Amino acid sequence: MSSVANPRLPDDETVTPAPAPKVAQRPTPPELSRALAARFGAAFSTAPALREQHGRDESAYTHVPPPAAVVFAESAEDVADAVRLCAQHKTPIIPFGVGSSLEGHLLAVEGGVSLDVSRMNRVLAVQPEDLTVAVEPGVTREALNRALKSYGLFFPIDPGADASIGGMCATRASGTNAVRYGTMRENVLALDVVTAKGDLIRTGTQARKSSAGYDLTRLFIGSEGTLGVMTKITLRVYPLPEAISAAICSFADIADAVQTVIEIIQLGVPIARVELLDGPSVAMVNRHSKLALIEEPMLLMEFHGSPAGVKEQAETVQEIACAHRGRAFEWAATPEARTRLWTARHHAYFAAVQSRPGCRAIVTDACVPISRLADCLLESKAEADASGIPYFLLGHVGDGNFHFGYLIGPHDAQERATAEGLNQRLVARALSMGGTCTGEHGVGLHKMGFLISEAGAGAIETMRTIKHALDPDNIMNPGKIVAW
Amino acid sequence: MSSVANPRLPDDETVTPAPAPKVAQRPTPPELSRALAARFGAAFSTAPALREQHGRDESAYTHVPPPAAVVFAESAEDVADAVRLCAQHKTPIIPFGVGSSLEGHLLAVEGGVSLDVSRMNRVLAVQPEDLTVAVEPGVTREALNRALKSYGLFFPIDPGADASIGGMCATRASGTNAVRYGTMRENVLALDVVTAKGDLIRTGTQARKSSAGYDLTRLFIGSEGTLGVMTKITLRVYPLPEAISAAICSFADIADAVQTVIEIIQLGVPIARVELLDGPSVAMVNRHSKLALIEEPMLLMEFHGSPAGVKEQAETVQEIACAHRGRAFEWAATPEARTRLWTARHHAYFAAVQSRPGCRAIVTDACVPISRLADCLLESKAEADASGIPYFLLGHVGDGNFHFGYLIGPHDAQERATAEGLNQRLVARALSMGGTCTGEHGVGLHKMGFLISEAGAGAIETMRTIKHALDPDNIMNPGKIVAW
Repeated sequence: MSSVANPRLPDDETVTPAPAPKVAQRPTPPELSRALAARFGAAFSTAPALREQHGRDESAYTHVPPPAAVVFAESAEDVADAVRLCAQHKTPIIPFGVGSSLEGHLLAVEGGVSLDVSRMNRVLAVQPEDLTVAVEPGVTREALNRALKSYGLFFPIDPGADASIGGMCATRASGTNAVRYGTMRENVLALDVVTAKGDLIRTGTQARKSSAGYDLTRLFIGSEGTLGVMTKITLRVYPLPEAISAAICSFADIADAVQTVIEIIQLGVPIARVELLDGPSVAMVNRHSKLALIEEPMLLMEFHGSPAGVKEQAETVQEIACAHRGRAFEWAATPEARTRLWTARHHAYFAAVQSRPGCRAIVTDACVPISRLADCLLESKAEADASGIPYFLLGHVGDGNFHFGYLIGPHDAQERATAEGLNQRLVARALSMGGTCTGEHGVGLHKMGFLISEAGAGAIETMRTIKHALDPDNIMNPGKIVAW
Repeated sequence: MSSVANPRLPDDETVTPAPAPKVAQRPTPPELSRALAARFGAAFSTAPALREQHGRDESAYTHVPPPAAVVFAESAEDVADAVRLCAQHKTPIIPFGVGSSLEGHLLAVEGGVSLDVSRMNRVLAVQPEDLTVAVEPGVTREALNRALKSYGLFFPIDPGADASIGGMCATRASGTNAVRYGTMRENVLALDVVTAKGDLIRTGTQARKSSAGYDLTRLFIGSEGTLGVMTKITLRVYPLPEAISAAICSFADIADAVQTVIEIIQLGVPIARVELLDGPSVAMVNRHSKLALIEEPMLLMEFHGSPAGVKEQAETVQEIACAHRGRAFEWAATPEARTRLWTARHHAYFAAVQSRPGCRAIVTDACVPISRLADCLLESKAEADASGIPYFLLGHVGDGNFHFGYLIGPHDAQERATAEGLNQRLVARALSMGGTCTGEHGVGLHKMGFLISEAGAGAIETMRTIKHALDPDNIMNPGKIVAW
């Protein structure tokens, strides 16, 4: 029955990096439990193991009690009925996909019911001529790509985890391909959403663009389950590139690597992926994935297009890299070599965590204008080096988004405090450079304070006004993004 | 003092295609006028000519009285003070850029004050490394591109008119380049907005992507001045392509042209522009621009990239077109030939209007999934042909967006009713095919009824809830998009 497709790290239960949320649990009335049991039968459960499973995500929060119950929805009607029943009893309801969110999004901080949509996992319609697909929210990214492959299509948004499409919409996810294909923001055409009142609304059409009223689609994308529950998602998809090639290039320092990326993008080269790893992170990847990459700052790149176009892009990029002292420019032209490199990149997080047995990573997610990226990285690295805490550094550098992962002893309060301090100073630095505290992971619980610093009181008040208007009883995943 | 940069057609004053809005004018209190005069001095005016100018747009509404006064804002503080004073007196305030909107967006249907931001026309900061620019809302599209040119950059969104960037945000504009570069939705990073309370908020950062809370940027884009007034806009810009080429190709029928476009996009060719004109529209363009194009359905295309990339794209497209009986494939490789073709395309509206002296065009703006485009066009053409009313047909076919312009005698009530009936049936057809009533012009007054059909009662109620929450006194451009 588990819908969690992602590996869980050891010692998950032992770290609480941010202050535990200070909100009162709301009791779930027995009448509501009875009504849900009557409506949902075996798809309603209060079994402790299930509740525990739905009370965790990939964040490090631990002291939050699990939800009082779990409902498995199999249709939009199921979702609407569950929301309506919770609304009648003013009881929180928290949408749950695969549990891969990173910032405490799924935690039942005010109690209530977890609404598991993982059984809503049908690919409803592929429209190859329109380059669109309609899916239920529980379809995972990898399942979607398997379904698209025979049409010669793919969905590029790739947050690493095999997340659900609903969850990716909820957090406005992106990943390694965003530099070329955009994020969930750019790739969702329309949503069916159950509102806090239990009404089913449609936020858009199948048309590629529209000027028809307020952009409800974009309002729900990134709303982290706090405004409604998605029941159907229409996505843009893309033709599988005729040719793909990958390359790596090492640099003496990070600034050269970043300047290379700036010039690649300024020249209009449509690079599909461009990831940065710092030297120690390359070393971790080498050990974990048995590679022999040069242990210096490295760009890992991918090019999509026609065979001639890919060749031209790569030549241009190689020239730019050479002008910035890039060396050991190497091709991975075969699918096997490419897969090996990208698998190593995707395993970098695990490589890092395994480099310090028993450790836990506290991961940052700032995103800055690329002109400030080298400064932001170098200052943050200097601070991390001075702290003595080991760390990894990965970046979606084409977007200015990067992740430090501070590898702390899970039982070491001192290290934990140091790492949270590094994170706070990093976010402050990113904000002072015109950046954001979260490029792709979302706010959840962990970044509510950062969001206030970033958005300012007026924008926070605007968000709160919208939340109050659309969810007047505060039942939709309460206690996330903005305090009530 | 006029800020209207767009040519105005003859007989503008004589056509009222849609029912005149049935809302009460709210009187503007003399105390408000006195307060605005004291605050704004010569930048406040009740001169009839100025009021008249600010009480018109490019729509065909005529029976709406002009605003009671005009305020020229030169700064965000001016905007905030004007909004605050209007809020104190619960008096409508209507942002005004250059007056090029098409659906009655600017009309003072409930009275009040026109807030002219055309003097806020500074390009505030160009960041070539980040490919961003910050502008005030009164900067026009062409002025922006003049400012960007020396940096080797351009802003691709091209709605035809030399609209203000603020207005383009307000209507979620797009145009001929959207198939490759997206619309205003995809190309605005952040806004400064004065809310209905007169507070200045910032909706985003300079980072290219973010998951930080509700997407206020996208909420204001397309909100047509009904939620707040933009005072600063940060846009994504693009490197000027190294090479550009244009081509035309004629087809025996529209279905072949559309199928060609579908295959171009399915193959992943990054075509920058692909416009359709039907045969009679090509004839109108020939007469107006003294060209000798074959008077059959025609695709007009543009390719951006490296010289080799552009050549490869064009060869691929030529092959696809030939497979669909495309003929007279012709290149416009020189900048002069290209400019001549695209100028002819941009003048197509005027070419059409001049083909029937004294006429007025009622212009549709539906957008459908491209798989349904040929059906939608052919059925709508058959109906238009049967009506006997002359018309033009242009389409941004890569997006599925197209414009019929029904050329009616401005004093002929019968023709007007016939044209509005054609428009209504066309919208109904587009909606039944999964499309939208407006691809790029916005809702304004004219499409409020269509929006209800398109979005459905639940989504309309959600929009209304947002409007009520963010503008509780209904002062921000009232009477547009959704009825109060």
